[in-house]
Amino acid sequence: MKKVRAAIVGYGNIGHYVLDALQAAPDFEIAGVVRRSGAENCPAELSDYPVVKHIQELEGVDVAILCTPTRKVEEYAKEILAMGIHTVDSFDIHMGIPALRRTLDEVAKAHNTVSVISAGWDPGSDSVVRTLLEAIAPKGITYTNFGPGMSMGHTVAVKAVDGVKAALSMTIPTGTGIHRRMVYIELKEGYEFEKVAAAIKVDPYFVNDETHVKLVPSVDALLDMGHGVNLTRKGVSGKTQNQLFEFNMRINNPALTAQVLVGVARASMRQQPGCYTMVEIPIIDLLPGDREEWIAHLV
Amino acid sequence: MKKVRAAIVGYGNIGHYVLDALQAAPDFEIAGVVRRSGAENCPAELSDYPVVKHIQELEGVDVAILCTPTRKVEEYAKEILAMGIHTVDSFDIHMGIPALRRTLDEVAKAHNTVSVISAGWDPGSDSVVRTLLEAIAPKGITYTNFGPGMSMGHTVAVKAVDGVKAALSMTIPTGTGIHRRMVYIELKEGYEFEKVAAAIKVDPYFVNDETHVKLVPSVDALLDMGHGVNLTRKGVSGKTQNQLFEFNMRINNPALTAQVLVGVARASMRQQPGCYTMVEIPIIDLLPGDREEWIAHLV
Repeated sequence: MKKVRAAIVGYGNIGHYVLDALQAAPDFEIAGVVRRSGAENCPAELSDYPVVKHIQELEGVDVAILCTPTRKVEEYAKEILAMGIHTVDSFDIHMGIPALRRTLDEVAKAHNTVSVISAGWDPGSDSVVRTLLEAIAPKGITYTNFGPGMSMGHTVAVKAVDGVKAALSMTIPTGTGIHRRMVYIELKEGYEFEKVAAAIKVDPYFVNDETHVKLVPSVDALLDMGHGVNLTRKGVSGKTQNQLFEFNMRINNPALTAQVLVGVARASMRQQPGCYTMVEIPIIDLLPGDREEWIAHLV
Repeated sequence: MKKVRAAIVGYGNIGHYVLDALQAAPDFEIAGVVRRSGAENCPAELSDYPVVKHIQELEGVDVAILCTPTRKVEEYAKEILAMGIHTVDSFDIHMGIPALRRTLDEVAKAHNTVSVISAGWDPGSDSVVRTLLEAIAPKGITYTNFGPGMSMGHTVAVKAVDGVKAALSMTIPTGTGIHRRMVYIELKEGYEFEKVAAAIKVDPYFVNDETHVKLVPSVDALLDMGHGVNLTRKGVSGKTQNQLFEFNMRINNPALTAQVLVGVARASMRQQPGCYTMVEIPIIDLLPGDREEWIAHLV
């Protein structure tokens, strides 16, 4: 059976875990890794693979797994889709999803390719659970409670603020979908803490949440990539009240995101041209191998 | 917007709750109800609808929601699909699903119709969760723990045993996916309890589980249609161990089954001809209205 040739685009935290997930997958081949610095100072675990500055230098790529910062996703996806290569990403600015989907849908269809966006765990696998619960109890309230845990997207956003040398954004659930953001930073020389903290608090990632910024001697000493979710819905099925649902996870955050990305990379090979979120894809398409065997085993 | 015209085929417990769910749905019209006894002794809540003995007597049916006993599903589905009407069901004999899917796939494709099978909560919505967890943590073990609660399928199976006048089968979770079946029955005149109990225990529904059959003066006094699930997975994402997932429900059983059936009836209108289980359908197709609005809200 022909394996799917995947390129890892961006080799930070997520990219590293995507390498793991691709190596563990029975049906993938790693076409190579795209890094800004190319093969320069290349980590040892990449020694078996082509490491390049631009995806055009890689051969026979079926799908590009975008492990870039969220705000670079659109630019990379457009360029790569136009090359006839599928893309998948974990774009995580919830309110930006419909617009990104529309833009990439057009590009994907024009180039006969498939893009699966916002495929991490939230947005991503949690979105599938939320959609399922909405369908099976159409009236009611869903609360998604995150953490405690490090938010990758929020941490990257803090790191992009001028003056920040190192950062960690922790998400603390305070119930009913309300969260506190605990942001730990180290400062670059010559910056004023109060100004940097104020800039962080007005970032779109933080502006709607209670946010505390703390100056610490070492962000590294605080790092733990465990995370969690407690997603609840109390709703009505038909006319029957008080239907109760709960979904919980305690997970390594980038490892889960990476595994979801590899699943949707596989699914991208099975969709018609266009751009999709995870709720628009049959879940079984995320699994390798024979559909009927999975049905016998899982349904 | 044109509403979907649904027929309820079979009017027992599930059929009654399907009526509720259709009445609550914004995009459905009730074409009528098919009962063995037709309009004879018709319950008051059906007075606004055509109640007939055969679905051919109803007009303009888009989809038939099969609320018959599981063992009648294949026969009804084949007949109705051949009439050019979609079917949905909650066929719940897990090991029979691949064969039913193959059979109905052929019939559906031959008549340009869609069939969604095994769409209740297990098989059904639980299958979606199991498949999602398998995809996001490919190595590991999933345990589905049911109850405590009344099993509709098992209760119907007991009622079909010769000599049983009334029955209730309770599912008791004993952990790691192992269950005890507590079966409460009333006997018909002239039957011997020990023989009836033995017949129940060898039924395919019970033969693999620890089953206790009890003779009671009134099954009715024991009836409560609440049920529950605790579904857990501990697995590996990529090469990262100990990813922990849990899905819990405390629900009215027939109300949830009915709501799932109405969701897949809607989804049947959006699929290509053929037979599907729920894991093969984009989850968003279970929801009414505009796809992009749901994506903005749920993803």
